Amino acid sequence: MSGGPTTGSSTQRDAPNTNERYKGLCLHTVTTKPWPIETAVERYARAGIGGITVWREALSGRSPEVIGSRIRDAGLSIVSLCRGGFFASVNPDDREHALEVNRAAIREAQELGAPLIVLVCGADPRQPLAESREQIADAIETLAPFARECGVKLGIEPLHPMYADTRSAIVTLRQAREVCEAVGAENAGVVVDAYHVWWDPDLEAELAKLGRDRIFGYHICDWRVPTEHMLTDRGIMREGCIPLKQIGSSVRAAGFSGFEEVEIFSTRLWAEDQDEVLDRILRAWKPAQKKREV
Amino acid sequence: MSGGPTTGSSTQRDAPNTNERYKGLCLHTVTTKPWPIETAVERYARAGIGGITVWREALSGRSPEVIGSRIRDAGLSIVSLCRGGFFASVNPDDREHALEVNRAAIREAQELGAPLIVLVCGADPRQPLAESREQIADAIETLAPFARECGVKLGIEPLHPMYADTRSAIVTLRQAREVCEAVGAENAGVVVDAYHVWWDPDLEAELAKLGRDRIFGYHICDWRVPTEHMLTDRGIMREGCIPLKQIGSSVRAAGFSGFEEVEIFSTRLWAEDQDEVLDRILRAWKPAQKKREV
Repeated sequence: MSGGPTTGSSTQRDAPNTNERYKGLCLHTVTTKPWPIETAVERYARAGIGGITVWREALSGRSPEVIGSRIRDAGLSIVSLCRGGFFASVNPDDREHALEVNRAAIREAQELGAPLIVLVCGADPRQPLAESREQIADAIETLAPFARECGVKLGIEPLHPMYADTRSAIVTLRQAREVCEAVGAENAGVVVDAYHVWWDPDLEAELAKLGRDRIFGYHICDWRVPTEHMLTDRGIMREGCIPLKQIGSSVRAAGFSGFEEVEIFSTRLWAEDQDEVLDRILRAWKPAQKKREV
Repeated sequence: MSGGPTTGSSTQRDAPNTNERYKGLCLHTVTTKPWPIETAVERYARAGIGGITVWREALSGRSPEVIGSRIRDAGLSIVSLCRGGFFASVNPDDREHALEVNRAAIREAQELGAPLIVLVCGADPRQPLAESREQIADAIETLAPFARECGVKLGIEPLHPMYADTRSAIVTLRQAREVCEAVGAENAGVVVDAYHVWWDPDLEAELAKLGRDRIFGYHICDWRVPTEHMLTDRGIMREGCIPLKQIGSSVRAAGFSGFEEVEIFSTRLWAEDQDEVLDRILRAWKPAQKKREV
Protein backbone atom coordinates (compact mmCIF):
# COMPACT_ATOMS: atom_id res chain seq x y z
CA MET A 1 0.00 0.00 0.00
CA SER A 2 1.51 3.31 -0.99
CA GLY A 3 1.35 6.34 1.31
CA GLY A 4 0.80 9.97 0.47
CA PRO A 5 -0.43 11.67 -2.65
CA THR A 6 0.84 10.10 -5.84
CA THR A 7 -0.36 12.49 -8.50
CA GLY A 8 3.01 13.94 -9.35
CA SER A 9 4.90 10.81 -10.16
CA SER A 10 2.06 8.60 -11.39
CA THR A 11 0.30 10.90 -13.82
CA GLN A 12 3.65 11.69 -15.40
CA ARG A 13 3.99 8.03 -16.27
CA ASP A 14 0.90 8.24 -18.46
CA ALA A 15 0.62 10.00 -21.78
CA PRO A 16 -1.63 13.07 -21.52
CA ASN A 17 -4.16 11.69 -23.99
CA THR A 18 -4.61 8.56 -21.88
CA ASN A 19 -5.50 10.73 -18.95
CA GLU A 20 -7.89 12.79 -21.02
CA ARG A 21 -9.66 9.66 -22.12
CA TYR A 22 -10.85 8.76 -18.61
CA LYS A 23 -11.43 12.19 -17.16
CA GLY A 24 -15.22 11.74 -17.40
CA LEU A 25 -15.04 8.38 -15.64
CA CYS A 26 -15.60 7.85 -11.92
CA LEU A 27 -15.17 4.66 -9.94
CA HIS A 28 -16.99 3.64 -6.79
CA THR A 29 -14.63 2.34 -4.16
CA VAL A 30 -16.95 -0.68 -3.75
CA THR A 31 -16.11 -1.70 -7.32
CA THR A 32 -12.57 -2.46 -6.18
CA LYS A 33 -13.62 -3.39 -2.66
CA PRO A 34 -10.51 -5.47 -1.85
CA TRP A 35 -8.34 -2.34 -2.13
CA PRO A 36 -8.05 -0.04 0.87
CA ILE A 37 -9.18 3.44 -0.17
CA GLU A 38 -5.57 4.68 -0.20
CA THR A 39 -4.71 2.09 -2.85
CA ALA A 40 -7.86 2.81 -4.82
CA VAL A 41 -7.06 6.54 -4.91
CA GLU A 42 -3.52 5.87 -6.07
CA ARG A 43 -4.57 3.40 -8.77
CA TYR A 44 -7.50 5.45 -10.07
CA ALA A 45 -5.32 8.56 -10.29
CA ARG A 46 -2.51 6.71 -12.00
CA ALA A 47 -4.97 5.46 -14.64
CA GLY A 48 -6.12 8.99 -15.34
CA ILE A 49 -9.64 8.42 -13.98
CA GLY A 50 -11.32 11.73 -13.16
CA GLY A 51 -13.59 10.94 -10.22
CA ILE A 52 -14.20 8.79 -7.20
CA THR A 53 -17.33 7.95 -5.25
CA VAL A 54 -16.49 6.94 -1.71
CA TRP A 55 -18.38 4.24 0.13
CA ARG A 56 -18.72 4.92 3.83
CA GLU A 57 -17.31 1.47 4.63
CA ALA A 58 -14.06 2.53 2.92
CA LEU A 59 -13.69 5.36 5.44
CA SER A 60 -13.82 3.05 8.43
CA GLY A 61 -11.16 4.01 10.99
CA ARG A 62 -10.07 7.01 8.92
CA SER A 63 -10.60 10.76 9.06
CA PRO A 64 -12.90 11.92 6.26
CA GLU A 65 -10.97 15.23 6.08
CA VAL A 66 -7.64 13.45 5.66
CA ILE A 67 -9.02 11.12 3.00
CA GLY A 68 -10.71 14.04 1.25
CA SER A 69 -7.42 15.95 1.06
CA ARG A 70 -5.60 12.89 -0.16
CA ILE A 71 -8.14 12.38 -2.96
CA ARG A 72 -7.94 16.00 -4.08
CA ASP A 73 -4.14 15.97 -3.91
CA ALA A 74 -4.22 12.93 -6.21
CA GLY A 75 -6.14 14.99 -8.74
CA LEU A 76 -9.45 13.15 -8.38
CA SER A 77 -12.84 14.78 -8.00
CA ILE A 78 -15.00 13.49 -5.17
CA VAL A 79 -18.30 12.78 -6.88
CA SER A 80 -20.42 11.46 -4.04
CA LEU A 81 -20.59 9.57 -0.77
CA CYS A 82 -22.45 6.23 -0.74
CA ARG A 83 -24.75 5.87 0.99
CA GLY A 84 -27.51 7.20 3.16
CA GLY A 85 -31.17 6.29 3.30
CA PHE A 86 -33.09 3.33 4.76
CA PHE A 87 -35.73 5.69 6.06
CA ALA A 88 -38.78 3.38 6.04
CA SER A 89 -39.89 1.45 9.09
CA VAL A 90 -43.10 0.54 10.88
CA ASN A 91 -41.25 1.56 14.03
CA PRO A 92 -41.09 5.32 14.74
CA ASP A 93 -37.93 4.89 16.85
CA ASP A 94 -36.20 3.22 13.91
CA ARG A 95 -37.25 6.07 11.64
CA GLU A 96 -35.84 8.58 14.15
CA HIS A 97 -32.61 6.58 14.35
CA ALA A 98 -32.37 6.58 10.54
CA LEU A 99 -32.52 10.39 10.58
CA GLU A 100 -29.61 10.48 13.03
CA VAL A 101 -27.57 8.06 10.91
CA ASN A 102 -28.25 10.20 7.85
CA ARG A 103 -27.29 13.43 9.60
CA ALA A 104 -23.98 11.75 10.47
CA ALA A 105 -23.58 10.69 6.83
CA ILE A 106 -24.26 14.24 5.63
CA ARG A 107 -21.67 15.59 8.05
CA GLU A 108 -19.25 12.96 6.79
CA ALA A 109 -19.89 14.04 3.19
CA GLN A 110 -19.16 17.64 4.20
CA GLU A 111 -15.94 16.66 5.96
CA LEU A 112 -14.86 14.54 3.00
CA GLY A 113 -15.76 17.28 0.56
CA ALA A 114 -18.39 15.26 -1.31
CA PRO A 115 -21.10 17.44 -2.84
CA LEU A 116 -23.67 14.61 -2.96
CA ILE A 117 -24.88 11.75 -0.85
CA VAL A 118 -26.59 8.84 -2.58
CA LEU A 119 -29.76 7.60 -0.88
CA VAL A 120 -30.98 4.01 -0.96
CA CYS A 121 -34.28 4.92 0.57
CA GLY A 122 -35.38 1.66 2.19
CA ALA A 123 -38.57 -0.37 2.47
CA ASP A 124 -40.18 -2.28 5.28
CA PRO A 125 -41.84 -5.55 4.20
CA ARG A 126 -44.24 -5.21 7.15
CA GLN A 127 -46.02 -2.24 5.58
CA PRO A 128 -47.35 -1.23 2.14
CA LEU A 129 -44.87 0.28 -0.30
CA ALA A 130 -46.94 3.48 -0.44
CA GLU A 131 -46.54 3.87 3.33
CA SER A 132 -42.78 3.41 3.02
CA ARG A 133 -42.69 6.05 0.29
CA GLU A 134 -44.48 8.57 2.49
CA GLN A 135 -41.96 7.98 5.27
CA ILE A 136 -39.14 8.42 2.76
CA ALA A 137 -40.53 11.75 1.55
CA ASP A 138 -40.99 12.91 5.15
CA ALA A 139 -37.41 11.99 6.02
CA ILE A 140 -35.91 13.73 2.99
CA GLU A 141 -37.99 16.82 3.67
CA THR A 142 -36.67 16.81 7.25
CA LEU A 143 -33.05 16.36 6.18
CA ALA A 144 -32.91 18.69 3.19
CA PRO A 145 -32.37 21.99 5.08
CA PHE A 146 -29.58 20.49 7.20
CA ALA A 147 -27.96 19.02 4.09
CA ARG A 148 -28.16 22.40 2.37
CA GLU A 149 -26.39 24.07 5.31
CA CYS A 150 -23.66 21.44 4.90
CA GLY A 151 -23.44 22.05 1.16
CA VAL A 152 -24.58 18.51 0.40
CA LYS A 153 -27.13 17.39 -2.18
CA LEU A 154 -29.42 14.40 -1.59
CA GLY A 155 -29.68 11.96 -4.50
CA ILE A 156 -32.58 9.51 -4.47
CA GLU A 157 -31.57 6.33 -6.28
CA PRO A 158 -34.50 4.22 -7.49
CA LEU A 159 -33.57 0.55 -7.14
CA HIS A 160 -34.63 -2.37 -9.29
CA PRO A 161 -38.05 -3.77 -8.27
CA MET A 162 -36.33 -6.97 -7.11
CA TYR A 163 -35.18 -4.91 -4.11
CA ALA A 164 -38.65 -3.61 -3.23
CA ASP A 165 -38.97 -5.88 -0.20
CA THR A 166 -36.34 -4.39 2.08
CA ARG A 167 -34.12 -1.95 0.18
CA SER A 168 -36.23 0.54 -1.73
CA ALA A 169 -39.91 1.32 -2.04
CA ILE A 170 -38.80 3.63 -4.85
CA VAL A 171 -38.31 1.45 -7.93
CA THR A 172 -38.83 3.85 -10.84
CA LEU A 173 -37.52 7.24 -11.88
CA ARG A 174 -41.08 8.51 -11.84
CA GLN A 175 -41.47 7.64 -8.17
CA ALA A 176 -38.14 9.31 -7.38
CA ARG A 177 -39.23 12.41 -9.28
CA GLU A 178 -42.55 12.46 -7.42
CA VAL A 179 -40.74 12.36 -4.09
CA CYS A 180 -38.54 15.26 -5.23
CA GLU A 181 -41.60 17.24 -6.22
CA ALA A 182 -43.31 16.49 -2.90
CA VAL A 183 -40.19 17.56 -0.98
CA GLY A 184 -39.67 20.65 -3.11
CA ALA A 185 -36.06 21.29 -2.09
CA GLU A 186 -33.46 22.35 -4.65
CA ASN A 187 -30.89 20.01 -3.18
CA ALA A 188 -33.11 16.90 -3.53
CA GLY A 189 -32.68 15.10 -6.84
CA VAL A 190 -32.26 11.70 -8.46
CA VAL A 191 -29.35 9.36 -9.09
CA VAL A 192 -29.86 7.24 -12.20
CA ASP A 193 -28.33 3.78 -12.11
CA ALA A 194 -28.68 1.93 -15.42
CA TYR A 195 -28.70 -1.43 -13.63
CA HIS A 196 -31.83 -0.50 -11.73
CA VAL A 197 -33.86 1.25 -14.43
CA TRP A 198 -32.86 -0.24 -17.80
CA TRP A 199 -36.11 -2.27 -18.04
CA ASP A 200 -38.40 0.74 -17.43
CA PRO A 201 -40.59 1.58 -20.45
CA ASP A 202 -40.76 5.19 -19.24
CA LEU A 203 -37.01 5.55 -18.90
CA GLU A 204 -36.38 8.02 -21.69
CA ALA A 205 -39.45 10.14 -20.97
CA GLU A 206 -38.62 10.30 -17.26
CA LEU A 207 -35.01 11.30 -17.88
CA ALA A 208 -36.28 14.16 -20.01
CA LYS A 209 -38.70 15.22 -17.26
CA LEU A 210 -35.97 15.14 -14.63
CA GLY A 211 -33.60 17.18 -16.76
CA ARG A 212 -30.31 18.71 -15.75
CA ASP A 213 -31.63 20.18 -12.51
CA ARG A 214 -32.80 16.86 -11.07
CA ILE A 215 -30.31 14.30 -12.39
CA PHE A 216 -27.57 14.36 -9.76
CA GLY A 217 -25.64 11.28 -10.80
CA TYR A 218 -25.35 8.49 -13.36
CA HIS A 219 -24.17 4.98 -12.44
CA ILE A 220 -23.29 2.25 -14.89
CA CYS A 221 -22.50 -1.48 -14.96
CA ASP A 222 -24.17 -4.38 -16.78
CA TRP A 223 -26.84 -7.04 -16.27
CA ARG A 224 -25.28 -10.45 -16.76
CA VAL A 225 -27.21 -13.15 -18.61
CA PRO A 226 -27.88 -15.19 -16.60
CA THR A 227 -27.58 -13.28 -13.35
CA GLU A 228 -26.63 -15.79 -10.66
CA HIS A 229 -27.13 -13.66 -7.57
CA MET A 230 -29.58 -10.85 -6.89
CA LEU A 231 -27.03 -8.61 -5.18
CA THR A 232 -23.49 -9.44 -6.18
CA ASP A 233 -23.40 -10.64 -9.78
CA ARG A 234 -23.27 -7.37 -11.67
CA GLY A 235 -21.12 -7.13 -14.74
CA ILE A 236 -18.62 -4.79 -16.34
CA MET A 237 -20.07 -2.72 -19.15
CA ARG A 238 -20.70 -4.81 -22.30
CA GLU A 239 -20.72 -8.06 -20.29
CA GLY A 240 -24.52 -8.08 -20.31
CA CYS A 241 -27.70 -6.81 -21.94
CA ILE A 242 -28.17 -3.22 -20.73
CA PRO A 243 -28.28 -0.80 -23.69
CA LEU A 244 -25.77 1.56 -22.06
CA LYS A 245 -25.07 3.51 -25.23
CA GLN A 246 -28.73 4.36 -25.63
CA ILE A 247 -29.33 5.12 -21.94
CA GLY A 248 -26.17 7.23 -21.78
CA SER A 249 -27.35 9.22 -24.79
CA SER A 250 -30.68 9.87 -23.12
CA VAL A 251 -29.00 10.94 -19.88
CA ARG A 252 -26.82 13.37 -21.84
CA ALA A 253 -29.78 14.56 -23.91
CA ALA A 254 -31.60 15.33 -20.66
CA GLY A 255 -28.78 17.75 -19.84
CA PHE A 256 -26.68 15.79 -17.39
CA SER A 257 -23.02 16.64 -17.81
CA GLY A 258 -21.43 14.89 -14.83
CA PHE A 259 -19.33 11.76 -14.43
CA GLU A 260 -20.22 8.26 -15.48
CA GLU A 261 -19.77 6.25 -12.31
CA VAL A 262 -18.88 2.57 -12.46
CA GLU A 263 -20.50 0.82 -9.52
CA ILE A 264 -20.19 -2.96 -9.64
CA PHE A 265 -21.01 -5.44 -6.88
CA SER A 266 -19.49 -8.75 -7.89
CA THR A 267 -18.10 -11.54 -5.75
CA ARG A 268 -16.56 -12.86 -8.96
CA LEU A 269 -14.65 -9.62 -9.69
CA TRP A 270 -13.75 -8.98 -6.06
CA ALA A 271 -11.97 -12.36 -6.06
CA GLU A 272 -9.80 -11.39 -9.04
CA ASP A 273 -6.65 -9.28 -9.26
CA GLN A 274 -7.95 -5.73 -8.86
CA ASP A 275 -5.40 -4.19 -11.23
CA GLU A 276 -6.69 -6.48 -13.97
CA VAL A 277 -10.29 -5.69 -13.09
CA LEU A 278 -9.48 -1.98 -13.35
CA ASP A 279 -7.86 -2.53 -16.76
CA ARG A 280 -10.94 -4.38 -17.99
CA ILE A 281 -13.21 -1.57 -16.79
CA LEU A 282 -11.07 1.00 -18.59
CA ARG A 283 -11.11 -1.01 -21.81
CA ALA A 284 -14.88 -1.55 -21.61
CA TRP A 285 -15.86 2.05 -20.92
CA LYS A 286 -17.02 4.22 -23.77
CA PRO A 287 -18.15 7.68 -22.74
CA ALA A 288 -21.80 8.31 -23.59
CA GLN A 289 -22.43 10.72 -26.42
CA LYS A 290 -25.43 12.92 -26.73
CA LYS A 291 -27.44 11.73 -29.70
CA ARG A 292 -26.86 13.95 -32.71
CA GLU A 293 -29.83 16.04 -33.71
CA VAL A 294 -31.30 14.83 -37.00
CA MET B 1 -49.98 -43.70 -7.08
CA SER B 2 -53.71 -44.18 -7.51
CA GLY B 3 -55.31 -44.89 -10.89
CA GLY B 4 -58.61 -43.74 -12.30
CA PRO B 5 -60.96 -41.02 -11.22
CA THR B 6 -61.24 -40.65 -7.48
CA THR B 7 -64.00 -38.11 -7.05
CA GLY B 8 -66.60 -40.53 -5.78
CA SER B 9 -64.72 -42.05 -2.92
CA SER B 10 -62.45 -39.18 -2.03
CA THR B 11 -64.88 -36.29 -1.90
CA GLN B 12 -67.16 -38.36 0.31
CA ARG B 13 -64.34 -38.50 2.87
CA ASP B 14 -64.49 -34.75 3.25
CA ALA B 15 -67.23 -32.75 4.89
CA PRO B 16 -69.15 -30.75 2.29
CA ASN B 17 -68.18 -27.40 3.80
CA THR B 18 -64.50 -28.25 3.45
CA ASN B 19 -65.05 -28.78 -0.23
CA GLU B 20 -66.97 -25.54 -0.60
CA ARG B 21 -64.15 -23.68 1.08
CA TYR B 22 -61.63 -24.48 -1.68
CA LYS B 23 -63.87 -24.43 -4.73
CA GLY B 24 -62.45 -21.05 -5.83
CA LEU B 25 -58.89 -22.31 -5.49
CA CYS B 26 -56.79 -23.71 -8.32
CA LEU B 27 -53.35 -25.29 -8.13
CA HIS B 28 -50.67 -25.34 -10.79
CA THR B 29 -49.21 -28.78 -11.27
CA VAL B 30 -45.73 -27.22 -11.01
CA THR B 31 -46.52 -26.24 -7.43
CA THR B 32 -46.46 -29.94 -6.52
CA LYS B 33 -43.94 -30.84 -9.21
CA PRO B 34 -42.74 -34.08 -7.60
CA TRP B 35 -46.23 -35.58 -8.05
CA PRO B 36 -47.13 -37.13 -11.40
CA ILE B 37 -50.21 -35.38 -12.73
CA GLU B 38 -52.39 -38.40 -11.87
CA THR B 39 -51.44 -38.04 -8.21
CA ALA B 40 -51.90 -34.28 -8.30
CA VAL B 41 -55.41 -34.65 -9.74
CA GLU B 42 -56.36 -37.19 -7.09
CA ARG B 43 -54.96 -35.14 -4.19
CA TYR B 44 -56.37 -31.80 -5.37
CA ALA B 45 -59.82 -33.35 -5.86
CA ARG B 46 -59.71 -35.09 -2.50
CA ALA B 47 -58.96 -31.76 -0.83
CA GLY B 48 -61.95 -30.16 -2.50
CA ILE B 49 -59.87 -27.82 -4.65
CA GLY B 50 -61.92 -26.52 -7.57
CA GLY B 51 -59.39 -26.05 -10.36
CA ILE B 52 -56.13 -27.16 -11.88
CA THR B 53 -53.71 -25.49 -14.24
CA VAL B 54 -51.69 -28.03 -16.15
CA TRP B 55 -48.04 -27.48 -17.01
CA ARG B 56 -47.06 -28.96 -20.35
CA GLU B 57 -44.17 -30.86 -18.74
CA ALA B 58 -46.73 -32.74 -16.63
CA LEU B 59 -48.32 -34.10 -19.83
CA SER B 60 -45.09 -35.64 -21.06
CA GLY B 61 -45.72 -39.14 -22.46
CA ARG B 62 -49.44 -38.83 -21.88
CA SER B 63 -52.50 -38.17 -24.02
CA PRO B 64 -53.91 -34.68 -23.35
CA GLU B 65 -57.44 -36.00 -24.06
CA VAL B 66 -57.08 -38.82 -21.54
CA ILE B 67 -55.67 -36.50 -18.88
CA GLY B 68 -58.39 -33.96 -19.66
CA SER B 69 -61.12 -36.56 -19.12
CA ARG B 70 -59.50 -37.76 -15.95
CA ILE B 71 -59.39 -34.25 -14.54
CA ARG B 72 -63.05 -33.58 -15.36
CA ASP B 73 -64.09 -36.96 -13.97
CA ALA B 74 -62.34 -36.00 -10.74
CA GLY B 75 -64.55 -32.93 -10.54
CA LEU B 76 -61.83 -30.38 -11.23
CA SER B 77 -62.07 -27.49 -13.67
CA ILE B 78 -59.18 -27.12 -16.09
CA VAL B 79 -58.26 -23.46 -15.74
CA SER B 80 -55.34 -23.13 -18.13
CA LEU B 81 -52.36 -24.73 -19.80
CA CYS B 82 -48.88 -23.40 -18.94
CA ARG B 83 -47.19 -22.27 -21.02
CA GLY B 84 -46.68 -20.86 -24.46
CA GLY B 85 -44.72 -17.82 -25.58
CA PHE B 86 -40.99 -17.08 -26.02
CA PHE B 87 -41.74 -15.24 -29.22
CA ALA B 88 -38.83 -12.78 -29.27
CA SER B 89 -35.61 -13.47 -31.11
CA VAL B 90 -33.14 -11.65 -33.33
CA ASN B 91 -33.32 -14.72 -35.55
CA PRO B 92 -36.37 -14.92 -37.90
CA ASP B 93 -36.11 -18.74 -38.05
CA ASP B 94 -36.34 -18.90 -34.28
CA ARG B 95 -39.41 -16.66 -34.34
CA GLU B 96 -41.02 -18.93 -36.94
CA HIS B 97 -40.17 -21.97 -34.85
CA ALA B 98 -41.76 -20.31 -31.80
CA LEU B 99 -44.99 -19.91 -33.75
CA GLU B 100 -44.99 -23.65 -34.52
CA VAL B 101 -44.34 -24.54 -30.91
CA ASN B 102 -47.20 -22.28 -29.86
CA ARG B 103 -49.60 -23.75 -32.41
CA ALA B 104 -48.78 -27.16 -30.93
CA ALA B 105 -49.42 -25.79 -27.45
CA ILE B 106 -52.77 -24.34 -28.53
CA ARG B 107 -53.78 -27.68 -30.02
CA GLU B 108 -52.71 -29.36 -26.80
CA ALA B 109 -54.87 -26.94 -24.80
CA GLN B 110 -57.81 -27.79 -27.05
CA GLU B 111 -57.24 -31.54 -26.63
CA LEU B 112 -56.89 -31.16 -22.88
CA GLY B 113 -59.98 -29.00 -22.72
CA ALA B 114 -58.17 -25.94 -21.31
CA PRO B 115 -59.85 -22.66 -22.27
CA LEU B 116 -56.68 -20.61 -21.81
CA ILE B 117 -53.00 -20.82 -22.51
CA VAL B 118 -50.63 -18.69 -20.44
CA LEU B 119 -47.94 -16.87 -22.40
CA VAL B 120 -44.48 -16.06 -21.07
CA CYS B 121 -43.68 -13.87 -24.00
CA GLY B 122 -39.89 -13.97 -24.11
CA ALA B 123 -37.05 -11.51 -24.58
CA ASP B 124 -33.79 -11.64 -26.45
CA PRO B 125 -30.88 -9.90 -24.69
CA ARG B 126 -29.28 -9.27 -28.08
CA GLN B 127 -31.94 -6.70 -29.04
CA PRO B 128 -33.77 -3.78 -27.39
CA LEU B 129 -36.81 -4.61 -25.26
CA ALA B 130 -39.02 -2.50 -27.54
CA GLU B 131 -37.99 -4.67 -30.49
CA SER B 132 -38.85 -7.83 -28.55
CA ARG B 133 -42.24 -6.36 -27.68
CA GLU B 134 -43.01 -5.69 -31.33
CA GLN B 135 -42.17 -9.28 -32.19
CA ILE B 136 -44.39 -10.46 -29.35
CA ALA B 137 -47.33 -8.40 -30.60
CA ASP B 138 -46.78 -9.70 -34.15
CA ALA B 139 -46.72 -13.31 -32.94
CA ILE B 140 -49.88 -12.98 -30.86
CA GLU B 141 -51.66 -11.27 -33.72
CA THR B 142 -50.64 -14.18 -35.97
CA LEU B 143 -51.76 -16.84 -33.49
CA ALA B 144 -55.01 -15.30 -32.25
CA PRO B 145 -57.28 -16.44 -35.13
CA PHE B 146 -56.00 -20.03 -34.92
CA ALA B 147 -56.42 -20.01 -31.14
CA ARG B 148 -59.98 -18.73 -31.54
CA GLU B 149 -60.80 -21.59 -33.93
CA CYS B 150 -59.48 -23.95 -31.25
CA GLY B 151 -61.58 -22.26 -28.56
CA VAL B 152 -58.47 -21.17 -26.68
CA LYS B 153 -57.73 -17.77 -25.16
CA LEU B 154 -54.22 -16.31 -25.05
CA GLY B 155 -53.19 -14.83 -21.70
CA ILE B 156 -50.16 -12.52 -21.68
CA GLU B 157 -48.43 -12.73 -18.32
CA PRO B 158 -46.20 -9.76 -17.50
CA LEU B 159 -43.16 -11.02 -15.60
CA HIS B 160 -41.15 -9.27 -12.92
CA PRO B 161 -38.51 -6.91 -14.36
CA MET B 162 -35.80 -9.21 -13.01
CA TYR B 163 -36.74 -11.53 -15.91
CA ALA B 164 -36.47 -8.86 -18.61
CA ASP B 165 -33.19 -10.24 -19.95
CA THR B 166 -34.38 -13.54 -21.42
CA ARG B 167 -37.91 -14.33 -20.27
CA SER B 168 -40.20 -11.38 -20.84
CA ALA B 169 -39.90 -7.98 -22.44
CA ILE B 170 -43.35 -7.38 -20.95
CA VAL B 171 -42.82 -6.46 -17.30
CA THR B 172 -45.89 -4.39 -16.43
CA LEU B 173 -49.64 -4.75 -16.77
CA ARG B 174 -49.67 -1.59 -18.84
CA GLN B 175 -47.35 -3.13 -21.42
CA ALA B 176 -49.49 -6.28 -21.54
CA ARG B 177 -52.60 -4.16 -22.02
CA GLU B 178 -50.90 -2.19 -24.79
CA VAL B 179 -50.04 -5.41 -26.62
CA CYS B 180 -53.68 -6.54 -26.28
CA GLU B 181 -54.85 -3.24 -27.69
CA ALA B 182 -52.37 -3.46 -30.57
CA VAL B 183 -53.49 -7.02 -31.36
CA GLY B 184 -57.18 -6.19 -31.01
CA ALA B 185 -58.41 -9.77 -30.66
CA GLU B 186 -61.12 -10.69 -28.18
CA ASN B 187 -59.27 -13.82 -27.14
CA ALA B 188 -56.06 -11.97 -26.24
CA GLY B 189 -55.92 -10.83 -22.62
CA VAL B 190 -53.76 -10.66 -19.53
CA VAL B 191 -52.84 -13.04 -16.73
CA VAL B 192 -52.07 -11.23 -13.48
CA ASP B 193 -49.49 -12.87 -11.25
CA ALA B 194 -49.11 -11.09 -7.92
CA TYR B 195 -45.47 -12.22 -7.67
CA HIS B 196 -44.58 -10.36 -10.83
CA VAL B 197 -46.56 -7.14 -10.40
CA TRP B 198 -46.89 -6.45 -6.67
CA TRP B 199 -44.25 -3.69 -6.76
CA ASP B 200 -45.93 -1.77 -9.63
CA PRO B 201 -47.20 1.68 -8.57
CA ASP B 202 -49.81 1.52 -11.35
CA LEU B 203 -51.12 -1.88 -10.31
CA GLU B 204 -54.56 -0.85 -9.10
CA ALA B 205 -55.19 1.62 -11.93
CA GLU B 206 -54.11 -0.91 -14.55
CA LEU B 207 -56.30 -3.68 -13.12
CA ALA B 208 -59.26 -1.31 -13.38
CA LYS B 209 -58.36 -0.48 -16.98
CA LEU B 210 -58.07 -4.16 -17.91
CA GLY B 211 -61.40 -5.00 -16.33
CA ARG B 212 -63.30 -8.27 -16.54
CA ASP B 213 -62.88 -8.59 -20.30
CA ARG B 214 -59.09 -8.53 -20.26
CA ILE B 215 -58.15 -10.23 -16.99
CA PHE B 216 -57.98 -13.89 -17.96
CA GLY B 217 -56.30 -15.29 -14.87
CA TYR B 218 -54.97 -14.48 -11.40
CA HIS B 219 -51.92 -16.23 -9.93
CA ILE B 220 -50.78 -15.99 -6.33
CA CYS B 221 -47.82 -16.93 -4.14
CA ASP B 222 -45.53 -14.82 -1.97
CA TRP B 223 -42.21 -12.94 -2.12
CA ARG B 224 -39.91 -14.33 0.56
CA VAL B 225 -37.72 -11.94 2.57
CA PRO B 226 -34.96 -12.51 1.73
CA THR B 227 -35.41 -14.24 -1.61
CA GLU B 228 -32.46 -16.58 -2.08
CA HIS B 229 -32.92 -17.48 -5.74
CA MET B 230 -34.35 -15.47 -8.62
CA LEU B 231 -36.40 -18.36 -10.03
CA THR B 232 -37.15 -20.98 -7.44
CA ASP B 233 -37.55 -19.40 -4.03
CA ARG B 234 -41.17 -18.33 -4.11
CA GLY B 235 -43.23 -18.68 -0.99
CA ILE B 236 -46.65 -19.87 0.08
CA MET B 237 -49.12 -17.07 0.68
CA ARG B 238 -48.35 -15.14 3.90
CA GLU B 239 -44.74 -16.35 3.93
CA GLY B 240 -43.61 -13.06 2.43
CA CYS B 241 -44.40 -9.41 1.83
CA ILE B 242 -46.89 -9.32 -1.06
CA PRO B 243 -50.13 -7.57 0.01
CA LEU B 244 -52.28 -10.38 -1.42
CA LYS B 245 -55.45 -9.26 0.36
CA GLN B 246 -55.25 -5.83 -1.22
CA ILE B 247 -54.26 -7.07 -4.67
CA GLY B 248 -56.97 -9.74 -4.59
CA SER B 249 -59.55 -7.08 -3.70
CA SER B 250 -58.44 -4.96 -6.64
CA VAL B 251 -58.60 -7.94 -9.01
CA ARG B 252 -62.13 -8.67 -7.80
CA ALA B 253 -63.10 -5.00 -7.96
CA ALA B 254 -61.94 -4.97 -11.60
CA GLY B 255 -64.56 -7.62 -12.31
CA PHE B 256 -62.50 -10.80 -12.39
CA SER B 257 -64.51 -13.70 -11.02
CA GLY B 258 -62.30 -16.69 -11.84
CA PHE B 259 -60.05 -18.93 -9.79
CA GLU B 260 -57.16 -17.92 -7.61
CA GLU B 261 -54.30 -20.02 -8.90
CA VAL B 262 -51.43 -21.00 -6.64
CA GLU B 263 -48.26 -21.17 -8.70
CA ILE B 264 -45.11 -21.67 -6.63
CA PHE B 265 -41.62 -22.50 -7.87
CA SER B 266 -39.61 -23.57 -4.86
CA THR B 267 -36.75 -26.04 -4.61
CA ARG B 268 -37.35 -25.90 -0.86
CA LEU B 269 -41.02 -26.95 -1.12
CA TRP B 270 -40.39 -29.48 -3.90
CA ALA B 271 -37.99 -31.27 -1.54
CA GLU B 272 -40.67 -31.61 1.17
CA ASP B 273 -43.53 -34.06 1.57
CA GLN B 274 -46.06 -32.86 -1.00
CA ASP B 275 -49.10 -33.79 1.09
CA GLU B 276 -47.80 -31.51 3.81
CA VAL B 277 -47.08 -28.75 1.33
CA LEU B 278 -50.63 -29.04 0.03
CA ASP B 279 -51.98 -28.81 3.58
CA ARG B 280 -49.93 -25.68 4.22
CA ILE B 281 -51.23 -24.09 1.02
CA LEU B 282 -54.82 -24.86 2.00
CA ARG B 283 -54.34 -23.42 5.48
CA ALA B 284 -52.67 -20.28 4.07
CA TRP B 285 -55.24 -19.51 1.39
CA LYS B 286 -57.89 -16.90 2.07
CA PRO B 287 -60.15 -16.16 -0.88
CA ALA B 288 -59.96 -12.55 -1.98
CA GLN B 289 -62.99 -10.43 -1.22
CA LYS B 290 -64.12 -7.50 -3.23
CA LYS B 291 -63.66 -4.38 -1.16
CA ARG B 292 -66.94 -3.22 0.35
CA GLU B 293 -68.25 0.01 -1.03
CA VAL B 294 -68.05 2.77 1.56
